[in-house]
This record gives sequence, structure tokens and C-alpha cells, in this order.
Amino acid sequence: MNLEAFVLQSEGDWRCMRSGHSLAFRQFEEVLSHITIKRLSLDDPQVTDLIATADEPEGKPCSPFFMEWSAESDWEPDDPSLVSQGSCVLIPFPTNADEGFLLRSVGYAEAEQAIGKYSFLSDGTFTLTTPYGQSIAEERIWFVSEHVRCRSSVLRTSEGSGVLQTSFSSEVRRLSL
Amino acid sequence: MNLEAFVLQSEGDWRCMRSGHSLAFRQFEEVLSHITIKRLSLDDPQVTDLIATADEPEGKPCSPFFMEWSAESDWEPDDPSLVSQGSCVLIPFPTNADEGFLLRSVGYAEAEQAIGKYSFLSDGTFTLTTPYGQSIAEERIWFVSEHVRCRSSVLRTSEGSGVLQTSFSSEVRRLSL
Repeated sequence: MNLEAFVLQSEGDWRCMRSGHSLAFRQFEEVLSHITIKRLSLDDPQVTDLIATADEPEGKPCSPFFMEWSAESDWEPDDPSLVSQGSCVLIPFPTNADEGFLLRSVGYAEAEQAIGKYSFLSDGTFTLTTPYGQSIAEERIWFVSEHVRCRSSVLRTSEGSGVLQTSFSSEVRRLSL
Repeated sequence: MNLEAFVLQSEGDWRCMRSGHSLAFRQFEEVLSHITIKRLSLDDPQVTDLIATADEPEGKPCSPFFMEWSAESDWEPDDPSLVSQGSCVLIPFPTNADEGFLLRSVGYAEAEQAIGKYSFLSDGTFTLTTPYGQSIAEERIWFVSEHVRCRSSVLRTSEGSGVLQTSFSSEVRRLSL
């Protein structure tokens, strides 16, 4: 699996089941959501604007993409004000066939621009470690079939190695709209 | 990570938060449970008995262990009849430093003796694929710190590549009893 193939396979509309585990409180969260992933061209204004405003990592930009999500929490399914949604632009900067940096306009753990380090494991699993101001997010994404992918995350404190929460998302491609 | 180190690091008492995702029905399941893992010696009767009754895989047995779990479902927390518990004996048969077979007295997807194929990914993640009569289980386990590990599973039908359900467990070591 290389980066271009991974982005190509990720492109599309996904229905997600996501579980969050708050380890200290032993609390579960359940979220149903949709994710849309679209490839962008390198000269798309969203891409050139993000590169212009960011601390550009080493490597050359490759296979940028746009991600949009809308989630409905289990707590108040009838209260539309609690539906969380958002979008971000992501630009990989490969440094070799298996590794590189990922610049994103909006972070996962914190809503700020962020640069993470990605690498592919021996079976093609994509892993991403992103430092934020207060925390470090470790994500991994792997395809279990062409149309099903899994995504896990671990959030730990920047100081020390305390693990705050984990999450797991099962994502099924929506084949016809 | 080699097999012996993995079993050694897994030994102990773990408090688990487990989420199950039924993909076709978009249903969540939440389970709190305890797992205890203990190494066994190669001449323990539980080990020799299992080897005697099983179709022995290639390789030599190494680092056998015992696993015991008790789970409390979210559906009926006050009904003790619904607490699921069980135990099994697991015997790895390494074929090289990174791969081998795993014989277990009780299966994960089905309650029968089973032999799976394990391998370690480049970052030390343990992966295990076990064929059962009706299904194939793909599990992966990785340590995010010395005392926190994550475990995911994907269950698919033997015929075709339909993914039936996934699960994710966050496991925190109980340090003092």
C-alpha cells in the first residue's frame, strides 16, 4: 500500500459506527456518522492556501484530499444543535514510499492546524501520530475489504504517557446514492 | 516484538471496555469485562492434554498461556445469568521470529478448538486469523503503553468477503489487587 493507493481507496462516502472509550471514567460513547472523502488537485485553492499559511513540512505535497463529516451523538439524537459536523483539507508530504508528514487544516484532537507523521505498517495499515498543544493523537486506519475500513485512535497527554481515551470506527462504503 | 515478549507483556489482570459493531443492523454493544492472562509451563497438564487431542500444527510449542474472562453485558447488568464468562488454553507454535500458529482450546467466534495463523506487523502489532466452521475471525492486538493495550476483531463469513461485525476493546492493566 502506498499513499496514493490509500487515498484513492479512501475516496467516497462512508457510513460510520464510532465508539469512544473514556478510560478513567469507564464511559462509552456511541456515534453514527457520515464521512465523505474527495481527492483534490495540487493547484486547488484550498490546497495552495493551506500550504501558504502553514509551516511547510519536508517532502513534496502529494494526493491532497478533502474530508467532511457529520455525526449524530447518542445523547440527544433529536436535538439538531448537538449534531457535530466539520470538514478539513489534508495534504500528505511523503518522505519515502512508506512514510511522510500529513498537514491538516483542522486537527483531530484539537481544532487547530496540525502536522502529523504517518507511516505504513507491513500489512498496509496507515498510522498517524499528531502532536497537539495538550495531547498526542495516534490514529491507525486499515481496510478489511475494499468497502470496509476500520479506524482506531488513542489520545494521550503530551506530558507523560497517560492514555486519556480511545476510539474505534467501523466504516462501510455507501455504494449507490 | 517477538512472541515470548508479547505473551510476557500480556500476562496480568486487565480491565476491559469492549464495543461491538453489528454492521448490517448498525447496532452497538457495550461490555465491561475482566481478563486474566497467566503463562503456563510446557509440561502443564492443560498444555499436554490440549496438544494430545489436537491436530498439531507445524512448529514447536512455545510460551503457552491461560486466559480467563468474565463480561457483564450492558443489556441486563442486574441479571447474573447474563454474565458471560469462560476460559481457554492457548499454545503458540512459532514457525519463524514473526509468524506461527496459535492453537486454542476454545475459539473466539465459535466455541470449538481452533488453530489460527498469527504474525507480527512491523510495529509489533500482533495479528491473528482464525478460520471457524461458518466464519473467519481477524484479530489484532497492540500495546499503546506498558499498561494499556488495544484489541480489535473483524468477523467475516467464510463464503465471500462479507464483514459481519467488528469489535474494539481498550484494556488497562490492574496494577494492584
